[in-house]
Amino acid sequence: MSETNLQILLAARPQGLPRASDFETVERPVRPPDDGEVLVKNVYLSLDPAMRGWMDDRKSYLPPVRLGDVMRGLTIGVVEASRHAGFAAGDRVTGVLGWQRYATVAAEQLDKLPPQVPLRLAMGPLGMTGMTAYFGLLDVGRPKEGETVLVSGGGGAVGSVVGQIAKIHGCRAVGIAGTAEKCRWMTEDLGFDAAIDYKTADLGEALRSACPDGVDVYFDNVGGEILDAALARINRGARVVICGAISQYNATEGVRGPANYLALLVQRARMQGFIVFDYARRYAEAQKAIGGWIAEGRIQARDDVVDGLENAPAALLRLFDGRNVGKLLVRIAEE
Amino acid sequence: MSETNLQILLAARPQGLPRASDFETVERPVRPPDDGEVLVKNVYLSLDPAMRGWMDDRKSYLPPVRLGDVMRGLTIGVVEASRHAGFAAGDRVTGVLGWQRYATVAAEQLDKLPPQVPLRLAMGPLGMTGMTAYFGLLDVGRPKEGETVLVSGGGGAVGSVVGQIAKIHGCRAVGIAGTAEKCRWMTEDLGFDAAIDYKTADLGEALRSACPDGVDVYFDNVGGEILDAALARINRGARVVICGAISQYNATEGVRGPANYLALLVQRARMQGFIVFDYARRYAEAQKAIGGWIAEGRIQARDDVVDGLENAPAALLRLFDGRNVGKLLVRIAEE
Repeated sequence: MSETNLQILLAARPQGLPRASDFETVERPVRPPDDGEVLVKNVYLSLDPAMRGWMDDRKSYLPPVRLGDVMRGLTIGVVEASRHAGFAAGDRVTGVLGWQRYATVAAEQLDKLPPQVPLRLAMGPLGMTGMTAYFGLLDVGRPKEGETVLVSGGGGAVGSVVGQIAKIHGCRAVGIAGTAEKCRWMTEDLGFDAAIDYKTADLGEALRSACPDGVDVYFDNVGGEILDAALARINRGARVVICGAISQYNATEGVRGPANYLALLVQRARMQGFIVFDYARRYAEAQKAIGGWIAEGRIQARDDVVDGLENAPAALLRLFDGRNVGKLLVRIAEE
Repeated sequence: MSETNLQILLAARPQGLPRASDFETVERPVRPPDDGEVLVKNVYLSLDPAMRGWMDDRKSYLPPVRLGDVMRGLTIGVVEASRHAGFAAGDRVTGVLGWQRYATVAAEQLDKLPPQVPLRLAMGPLGMTGMTAYFGLLDVGRPKEGETVLVSGGGGAVGSVVGQIAKIHGCRAVGIAGTAEKCRWMTEDLGFDAAIDYKTADLGEALRSACPDGVDVYFDNVGGEILDAALARINRGARVVICGAISQYNATEGVRGPANYLALLVQRARMQGFIVFDYARRYAEAQKAIGGWIAEGRIQARDDVVDGLENAPAALLRLFDGRNVGKLLVRIAEE
């Protein structure tokens, strides 16, 4: 318990892309658990686009991270010490434990991971991003067999699973991403029917060609001009799932609204947002389904692991410049 | 049958607001009906914001009106001559018969009006605008007792009925309009709980004050900054009904998309468009309900009647400059 805790705090509210100076790294003593608390040694930190929103001082589905607080983040770790009957040293757990090596938290903030699940899968398709893909696509998007499902950020942790679940449900799956490598991954490894590199393609033309029967479900992770281009291709009764808007999170001059939103009227379509946390009671259902598909080889996952908690601020930028493929993780400690 | 038919044709595609030169008035002989056809003398022409969209050369839920064709429009009239067993001279009918004094059409294009319904009500709450309010609010918006229903264009033919149906369903009804007169009409005559004059109010502040518990259903007829302001006030699980976007129909520099659309994500809300024609098989249900409410004095209607078909092009502009209150009609002939 003489260990030092490395913590990364939110030091300033970013203007546009987060910079190193928006974070502060501090060393503090590890706090031993009180009654009912658990001390967790973090192993992996999940880096997610939504984090950018949490840094802004704006009402949202979660309160903003306060300046000077440990930056918010989902982690997976191992219990080091417990003063709660439900947890014992060695248990593998997950929770919103923040950008830090150790977290001392109330037991209620933790969920235990089943022992057989590899930690990195628990951060990907069996974790929050997998849950997001599953409930966003199936509950909000409601794809039917034979329909076309288009997903932006198709090379990301959520989008790559959305496309694969769409295929499992008998849909045509089309992904949009920003590098040829991600496009190859989607079509050659993940079984997408088509992929569009939005940085090199004429988006309107590419969508016409990749979605010859139009788009029935559009799962949007990016917003901006890609959302507009997708709206221009939706079919009657289409469902546009708003999962995120990564192209807009660093906008300093205000969010760009979808100018083509009247396609919703013309096509009697709906655009609907969701927050994965609302489905917490149904995670087990999704984990069972996705776990089965992984076992059958029908869902593949890929991760992009950056070593060292101190590199988290720089690694976060990989989400915004299109470099990362699959689930972006920071390895805080060896498994 | 020696009557001359006055017709107003679409002569040019408007840039921005329609101008007189976008129309051409012609006189042609009335064509007698062939077998299966009916000759109708139009009495009232409905002027509707959607007409502006029909003038553009753009794919939509109806094909564009072709240049040189009679301008499209819903009318109510009286059968002059019939060569179809289902119709007889003197029958009161409605159909999309166009901006003209007489229409010779296949009987299938006509619906008979019940004899007891006043023609002007059949153009208002018992007609297309009433159907639009009924199905848009109840089927798409799904208001629950005690919720707040906000409607833009609240002084218009659709919006005024939306607010009244919301009240009948036990909701708080708040209307937005562009003149003090319309606001007074909504609150003093129609029973709305509050009304906002967007031309004089600070919209954000006025919405906070008029909708202290937020907005559960927003019925949007206007788009633009009012849609954005409403999105900023929606509650968790809100429904945003896209009925129209009158503020955008004459935009020459592209539609303004709702920059606050990410409120849909934060609030797990949906935005959904609809077209009233899809509910044609259920019009009788709505007419029965609305007719009952009118008889009970719970729904009031108002119309704004312009005399003379030749004045239709100028009258259409009343929809876009905020002058008209209630249902805008052109009287083509005496009842």
